[in-house]
Amino acid sequence: MKTSIDCLPCFLRQTVIALRQYGGDETTHMRVLRNVLAIMQETDLHRPPAYTTTFIHRTIRDSIAGDPFEKIKKEYNALALSLYPSLRERVAASPDPLWTASRLAIAGNIIDFGIFTSIDIEKSINESLRPGIAVDAFASFRGDLMETEEILYLLDNAGEIVFDRLLIEELQAGGKHVTAVVKGSPVLNDVTMDDAVQVGLSDVCKVIDNGSDAIGTFLPWTSPGFRARFEKAPLIISKGQGNFETLSGTEKRTYFLFQSKCDVVSRELGLSPCSMLFKRS
Amino acid sequence: MKTSIDCLPCFLRQTVIALRQYGGDETTHMRVLRNVLAIMQETDLHRPPAYTTTFIHRTIRDSIAGDPFEKIKKEYNALALSLYPSLRERVAASPDPLWTASRLAIAGNIIDFGIFTSIDIEKSINESLRPGIAVDAFASFRGDLMETEEILYLLDNAGEIVFDRLLIEELQAGGKHVTAVVKGSPVLNDVTMDDAVQVGLSDVCKVIDNGSDAIGTFLPWTSPGFRARFEKAPLIISKGQGNFETLSGTEKRTYFLFQSKCDVVSRELGLSPCSMLFKRS
Repeated sequence: MKTSIDCLPCFLRQTVIALRQYGGDETTHMRVLRNVLAIMQETDLHRPPAYTTTFIHRTIRDSIAGDPFEKIKKEYNALALSLYPSLRERVAASPDPLWTASRLAIAGNIIDFGIFTSIDIEKSINESLRPGIAVDAFASFRGDLMETEEILYLLDNAGEIVFDRLLIEELQAGGKHVTAVVKGSPVLNDVTMDDAVQVGLSDVCKVIDNGSDAIGTFLPWTSPGFRARFEKAPLIISKGQGNFETLSGTEKRTYFLFQSKCDVVSRELGLSPCSMLFKRS
Repeated sequence: MKTSIDCLPCFLRQTVIALRQYGGDETTHMRVLRNVLAIMQETDLHRPPAYTTTFIHRTIRDSIAGDPFEKIKKEYNALALSLYPSLRERVAASPDPLWTASRLAIAGNIIDFGIFTSIDIEKSINESLRPGIAVDAFASFRGDLMETEEILYLLDNAGEIVFDRLLIEELQAGGKHVTAVVKGSPVLNDVTMDDAVQVGLSDVCKVIDNGSDAIGTFLPWTSPGFRARFEKAPLIISKGQGNFETLSGTEKRTYFLFQSKCDVVSRELGLSPCSMLFKRS
């Protein structure tokens, strides 16, 4: 998808959120902001928002020589892990555990910087378990699962990864072989190998990294090893808005599980903001 | 007041609103945005937000060689004028017309780019006429009126100016001599002499311009004639957030009538956003 001019204020909002996470003084903040504003002058509206934000978050990390989200990611993971046992029971006790786990994976996508409170996540969980969501390709997904053993699972955010673990475990219970994909290095609150280890996902399934620090999955920037894996994957589960932005034009059989958190993406999809999607490519 | 880093995303949001009002194509939009981003790199956090936004709106007008808000200002004025007769009656029929008119002047401050719908303004009117608002210096204002004949009235937005006319007429009915002040040239949806003529205010009282295209009233940028007037004014009524940002430190006897429309100003004031204020300097 393309970038809208409406994305530019949001790029700066993300920068301010990163600076608040980092702390520091006003002089540092303005130095980082000046660097980000310079990057934004090069915004290419014909590329996805995630393209520009990748450069922005790289600039932020370079400017402060660190990862502003390192601490909060750990907190999100710990908070989500505390919900794991009850969610696991909820899945097991449900009439259709795969359906329930897939809906909870969409619910978990609400976990994003600064908006995760226990109220938000409970609300998101309850909404995800209602019969109807904005886009629902679950029936097609279940059909496609009959034809494949192998699933490539593109993860998104810290905290959310615990909800993904539930779905991955259900897929494995159904005899599927799942490979989960984390980012190659820190960007925003996206998961890296550290997060997969923290929430125990690395004990549950094979976890690889995509060799990239891009928001979403921008294939030319990923490692040759990941690209080869992506190309031969018979079925891909793609979590989050960033992956949707960068992969929505793919010809691969992909299921996008996410919530449309911003007006621009929602408008692109013809949906109201905060819609839940289980969307087939 | 100072600028917060939280203001920067909002500066860009204002730019996008201006571009949507203007129309034009993506190439133009990005050209304007690049110019604005360059201005924003010079943001001085020690000055009020209105300082930087003045440069931003100047850059927008220069970049498109026009005033993006010209059309919508006329529409806002016309819409507010259609409410004038019933509001006039409401003031006249009220137990304390001066109180009612002053509250309606605060209600009118809700009229800002893109947020003025008939529902918003009705809601704002009803809220303004409740006994309690967040800050209420009306009693002090009434007391000060006893001691002065002359009032300098700093206007704010198109549409809102119709509500100001109600208060000005009430002040005149009480024997006061009111001079209303418009901007020297277009900036955002702030009123200029054209607006005062359109809503008939120029037939009601003396209207002067401040010789400036600044958001709010940045005294060093106003004309010597206006400054002299300002300095000798015994009582000033200041409408809107921009005037509060730029004049909040004044030693002049000033009453700020406005709604705190943004988080940064609300935080500065220790109030919740969208609070209504009748605040003494």
